[in-house]
Amino acid sequence: MPLLPFDPLPIAHALADAAAAESMRYFRTPLDIITKADESPVTLADRAAETAMRDILGARCPADGIYGEEHGRERLDAGRVWVLDPIDGTRSFITGSPLWGTLIGLVEGGRITLGLIDMPVLGERWIGRAGPDGAAVAERNGHPVRASGCQALAQARIVTTSPDIFSADEWRAFDALSRRCAMRRFGGDCYGYAQLAGGTIDLVVESGLQPYDFLGPAGLIEAAGGIVTDWRGRPLGLDSGGRVVAAATPALHAEALAGLRDVA
Amino acid sequence: MPLLPFDPLPIAHALADAAAAESMRYFRTPLDIITKADESPVTLADRAAETAMRDILGARCPADGIYGEEHGRERLDAGRVWVLDPIDGTRSFITGSPLWGTLIGLVEGGRITLGLIDMPVLGERWIGRAGPDGAAVAERNGHPVRASGCQALAQARIVTTSPDIFSADEWRAFDALSRRCAMRRFGGDCYGYAQLAGGTIDLVVESGLQPYDFLGPAGLIEAAGGIVTDWRGRPLGLDSGGRVVAAATPALHAEALAGLRDVA
Repeated sequence: MPLLPFDPLPIAHALADAAAAESMRYFRTPLDIITKADESPVTLADRAAETAMRDILGARCPADGIYGEEHGRERLDAGRVWVLDPIDGTRSFITGSPLWGTLIGLVEGGRITLGLIDMPVLGERWIGRAGPDGAAVAERNGHPVRASGCQALAQARIVTTSPDIFSADEWRAFDALSRRCAMRRFGGDCYGYAQLAGGTIDLVVESGLQPYDFLGPAGLIEAAGGIVTDWRGRPLGLDSGGRVVAAATPALHAEALAGLRDVA
Repeated sequence: MPLLPFDPLPIAHALADAAAAESMRYFRTPLDIITKADESPVTLADRAAETAMRDILGARCPADGIYGEEHGRERLDAGRVWVLDPIDGTRSFITGSPLWGTLIGLVEGGRITLGLIDMPVLGERWIGRAGPDGAAVAERNGHPVRASGCQALAQARIVTTSPDIFSADEWRAFDALSRRCAMRRFGGDCYGYAQLAGGTIDLVVESGLQPYDFLGPAGLIEAAGGIVTDWRGRPLGLDSGGRVVAAATPALHAEALAGLRDVA
């Protein structure tokens, strides 16, 4: 009897459900903020949510690799690697903003095959994946979403989390690039990537990220028809650096890369 | 038979309900964006929501004054003036972010007696008002909220919507001030004021605002124990300029004003 094909979707939902149950217990309650070596604020909620996700993976696919924000990396040479950020936007979480989310990426043979952004406060789960017929499918709460058709910087709506995520050189490049856009916005953490997948933002440019910050979003956006690379146009993977350009169309992506070339 | 005392609360709820019904019909649908003289994006949703609110005021308290974003000012010399911003955060609205809200302020005899921030996508209604016994009451969905006890800039979490709301001089002052804080955040439009009322943000500093942008939030925050003035420390009213400092405590407020003194 042949094995049933592996279906990551129920596992991804279970992971997001488990993370949300943990993180929502802590949202808007006083938190013990622990400062890590890199000074990002980490909370008990973060750790509890990642532990809950790792417990599920340990039970349901113990041979898979895991790359998590809080509890490290294991079996990165496995055929499947789950990339987990239990609470992306910890500063949003701490300050009572709803714009934090759980990010889940699945990397199979070096390729991102599933990306999930779950926004527990908003009640929005965004998932991109290879569909049953091999075609890509991107959905928000089961409703199809698609990146915009924006072809040019002059028409683009761009978002980034904060000027503070850039080095001085990077900021100068981002500042010049984003001033050429039709609209620029700050804030939002991972939600900017969801907006891009949903067609309401056309471009996200960030720096200082880790693979668990961008691989889940990249899987979603690519399934929605967008393009996500580093600032040099290289595909993202488990060993990518922290600079990300996510765009709705190839033309817009190329124009953004050209604008960042001097510092890339 | 004596007249029943005027109770603005049911009217404020009716206004917020009516605005939300209109604006949510348009959220995440393609919008005809009309550019006003000041270049802020105005949508059909904005206008429909303010019209719905004005219809209610016309029916229930026709002698009251109205200061609205979209449809202008009338009877500003009335004993009660309703200050209305149907969609604060139009850019958030347009880009599919949930962080836009309806702002309602009630000014009686020059004093802000009620402030409301309604966040339709989040399902959060924040209201501050004089309570039945004369004491101030601030609530989120009926649950009491209170500004934090943060006394010093070095411990403060500060938020502002975007570097782009400041002039070059103002930005230099804000940048220096906010770098002295424990955490600075960008984005959020009116939600930063709600966070301050809820105790998860300690300081909001903005510029370029209009009375309909800050009087509703000011009423909420003052009822929650915070302090809201212009950058010179003057109380806010219908004829105030666009620079706002909102702080959780008098000590923090004083420290913020001192930091902005050179450009105030």
